[in-house]
Amino acid sequence: MRLTFCAALALAAAMPAIAAVPDPVVNGRIIDAGMNHGDVMETVAYLTDRIGGRMTNSPQMRAAENWTRQRFAEYGLSNARLEPFEFGQGWSIDSSQVRMTAPRVLTLRSIPVAWTPGTGGAVTAPIVVAPLRRDRDFAKWRGKLAGKIVLVSMPGEADEPKDAAFERYDSPAITKLDVFDQPKTSAADLAKTIRRDGFGARRDAFLAAEGAKAWVSKSYRDGGLISGEGEGYAAGDARRVPGIQMAAEDYRRLARLAKGSEPVALEIDTRVTFHSADTRANNVIADLPGRDPKAGYVMAGAHLDSWVGADGATDNAAGSAVVMEAARILAGLGVKPKRAIRFALWSGEEQGLYGSIAYLVQHLVTRAPITDPALAKVNPYYTWPTRYPITPKSEFNELAAYFNLDNGSGKIRGIYAEGNPAVAATFTQWLAPFAGMGADAVVSSRTTGTDHVFMQSVGLPGFQFIQDPLDYETRTHHSDVDTFDHLKAADLRQASVIMASFLWNAANADAPLPRPPLPTRPKETDPFAYVDDEE
Amino acid sequence: MRLTFCAALALAAAMPAIAAVPDPVVNGRIIDAGMNHGDVMETVAYLTDRIGGRMTNSPQMRAAENWTRQRFAEYGLSNARLEPFEFGQGWSIDSSQVRMTAPRVLTLRSIPVAWTPGTGGAVTAPIVVAPLRRDRDFAKWRGKLAGKIVLVSMPGEADEPKDAAFERYDSPAITKLDVFDQPKTSAADLAKTIRRDGFGARRDAFLAAEGAKAWVSKSYRDGGLISGEGEGYAAGDARRVPGIQMAAEDYRRLARLAKGSEPVALEIDTRVTFHSADTRANNVIADLPGRDPKAGYVMAGAHLDSWVGADGATDNAAGSAVVMEAARILAGLGVKPKRAIRFALWSGEEQGLYGSIAYLVQHLVTRAPITDPALAKVNPYYTWPTRYPITPKSEFNELAAYFNLDNGSGKIRGIYAEGNPAVAATFTQWLAPFAGMGADAVVSSRTTGTDHVFMQSVGLPGFQFIQDPLDYETRTHHSDVDTFDHLKAADLRQASVIMASFLWNAANADAPLPRPPLPTRPKETDPFAYVDDEE
Repeated sequence: MRLTFCAALALAAAMPAIAAVPDPVVNGRIIDAGMNHGDVMETVAYLTDRIGGRMTNSPQMRAAENWTRQRFAEYGLSNARLEPFEFGQGWSIDSSQVRMTAPRVLTLRSIPVAWTPGTGGAVTAPIVVAPLRRDRDFAKWRGKLAGKIVLVSMPGEADEPKDAAFERYDSPAITKLDVFDQPKTSAADLAKTIRRDGFGARRDAFLAAEGAKAWVSKSYRDGGLISGEGEGYAAGDARRVPGIQMAAEDYRRLARLAKGSEPVALEIDTRVTFHSADTRANNVIADLPGRDPKAGYVMAGAHLDSWVGADGATDNAAGSAVVMEAARILAGLGVKPKRAIRFALWSGEEQGLYGSIAYLVQHLVTRAPITDPALAKVNPYYTWPTRYPITPKSEFNELAAYFNLDNGSGKIRGIYAEGNPAVAATFTQWLAPFAGMGADAVVSSRTTGTDHVFMQSVGLPGFQFIQDPLDYETRTHHSDVDTFDHLKAADLRQASVIMASFLWNAANADAPLPRPPLPTRPKETDPFAYVDDEE
Repeated sequence: MRLTFCAALALAAAMPAIAAVPDPVVNGRIIDAGMNHGDVMETVAYLTDRIGGRMTNSPQMRAAENWTRQRFAEYGLSNARLEPFEFGQGWSIDSSQVRMTAPRVLTLRSIPVAWTPGTGGAVTAPIVVAPLRRDRDFAKWRGKLAGKIVLVSMPGEADEPKDAAFERYDSPAITKLDVFDQPKTSAADLAKTIRRDGFGARRDAFLAAEGAKAWVSKSYRDGGLISGEGEGYAAGDARRVPGIQMAAEDYRRLARLAKGSEPVALEIDTRVTFHSADTRANNVIADLPGRDPKAGYVMAGAHLDSWVGADGATDNAAGSAVVMEAARILAGLGVKPKRAIRFALWSGEEQGLYGSIAYLVQHLVTRAPITDPALAKVNPYYTWPTRYPITPKSEFNELAAYFNLDNGSGKIRGIYAEGNPAVAATFTQWLAPFAGMGADAVVSSRTTGTDHVFMQSVGLPGFQFIQDPLDYETRTHHSDVDTFDHLKAADLRQASVIMASFLWNAANADAPLPRPPLPTRPKETDPFAYVDDEE
């Protein structure tokens, strides 16, 4: 067993017993249902192979919402439902073909950038390499881009990967995760981030005003991988100039040829569809009722939406299928827990946690409104956590625990206490039966970028599990090889069993997990800093 | 300095001085010309970005032949020429698009397999996963493939790369290369290899007879990489059924969907051109004359042809550009060496060393004719080295040394003695000035699979350099990311300088490099083996 900071704390201190020791009979039934009779791979195969990439409000995401809702109902859960929230129009790719036509003919690997218009037919134009990375770059290129296809990224150089693409954590690597990150608050940093987030829209406006025919960005990964993820999103954005993301190797070839004396031209034929009939996205929610209506509920969640480069397998059909499998396993126990158990598949995560914010607003809290009109259109990912005071709704005290899964297909190795060390003793107890499956660490660190973080931002007990990294960051995350075959069946079965067990324990614990105080606006953490406004 | 087996031998033994110590003045001029005034990157940029993939006898290879011949002439070499040899028709891709059309629509990453016909328009058909890996698999699928697109590979599972994709050798890794591999001769192994080599043609005949519409193989690498290299080649092969190679992730998705109840269909639209007006391929040869016509010549070579997945950068525009750069540097010295120096850019290497075999036959040796008619159509890569006796031509004794470069873009770390330890003392001397550039090892090992091997097979002194691996095997070799940006300028400049220096030393050495005796048919090396005919 790994003796991390928090685990050591748990062993050393005589903390009040807030949780029963895990029930070994129920745990045994959970393991049997997940390992010997598991359905997680069939679930994830349907989401990935059969439905494919699930951009929020695309037809594929609609299919996934309906299919998962129906599956929850078939598992025997109560009130399997779609909970709509306003998001904006959907977007999907119909076809895409990009060729260099001069100085020679060559098909290039690329993908339309999300929420940009298609060319709607073959558009051929000379290229210009005009790196546009910040607002001050616009002046240099003004008057030079009309009728051109604009390459907006710096070409850079090929990478030299010195680490293995596929990794499982060893003990020292997990120990390194055990860091209590002190919170950091900086109004200047936030302003800079917000400004940078809006750059994609400003560049689009610049390119449209200049009469550029299309723009091309370079994939941030080598080896031919592409993702097509958008560059900043705010609901209702209407980009005007077609954009494509190109494989780094193909992009750099164009940039080198552009240094020569011969004209270089591209033919872009991208066809996409915007879906505006219904601009509401849906969270998929279902409940396993508890036996004590006053005891509140516990919850598991994962985002169902994805980017469109491939099938959104490791990000995050994997997590969605684990949540669904935990639901199937627990519903199959035929025993009511003390608290209700709620299962959530979020939408709009990839554009800024839209779905989980919507759930918070609909169920749990209100935060102060935006008063600065300049911030009204900024992505809520940046503004939502800055709005004080937080006003709890009546359901606020009912949510006893939230567990999130969104780091690929790797098996669970433990759990992040997410800066709330008071939960470590309990989690250490809950993990005890799973040491032999490789899951025994409780670490202090906070994790970011997915749907538990805004639970935390309002003082709710939201957590994410530690997962083996596998090739998530190096290869599959948002890329065109995020496919089923990069999932690991043994890992997803293990994760499903541990998720189910954690939910069962949390639902039956004597007391809810300890919470921090209701957050109020924090002090600036670096009041003596000078702001360097050079980007 | 690394003390390898052969280097130690060289230091320990008082061998006769067959070579002058490298001339430091000339070496200095070579280094200046290559490092301060180098042209290797401009050369390789033209071959890759501007010309692109150079399949033997394709229009791109014709352009490369003419351009490189002209460059040799511009460097001031004598008699820059094309030396034709019979190869077979050329083949090039005009366009290629492959989509899954059922159960959903999705563009798939694939490439036509070399020397197979195109579909010549959109062909849509249901798929069948029918792994056809050996002749005995045919029986299982007979009568079941008519009108189908046949997936002929086993889907397998995604890889889990545990080593870094990019590597430079450290000292222990180079020491491991120092192995005297005893020759191995086995008529049974050879027969098996030949039989396996012909399998592609037999599978094509089977699929044609069954009425299959097309076939699909799986790329042997993950991460979306594809190559399209052929599966066995013999000049004049006329494949009948269109074949494509598909990215592993896309192939496996099809194979999984085929396990379901819904029909799975592909639409394949591949257009290729066979070029049969001139079936002769060309080696590009040029000479730097020596001052002693009786002293013979030394030679550098690299293959100019490539596969067609990308631009054939690391395989082998890199080696070709280094040979050209050595020519440019040495011609620029304005000093005649004792022996002539010949530069060769081979064609047909990727299909079985056709170009270097042709040079041997045209200039250096004859080998006994094929008597078994069953072997007449077998790829000469397998049969040529088995034909005894070897009869030297008059030019045989003139070739004093041959140096090959064909292992990617990595800098030179030393040289393989290729099972001829008698040369180690000389090579150690020649490398001495380059230790600071990382090139100081002489190792015993033989290397295979490129154009020096059949020089060796007839007893000529043919060698290849040790190069840093970089990402050649893991990523670029034959793949669709074999592009200029995976080349390393510093490495190619270093290799050019060392190649030029080696040629200069070999051309001015007192005596030619020591040779082994003229080979005669070797004994079977494992006369007591039983043959397991289970494949």
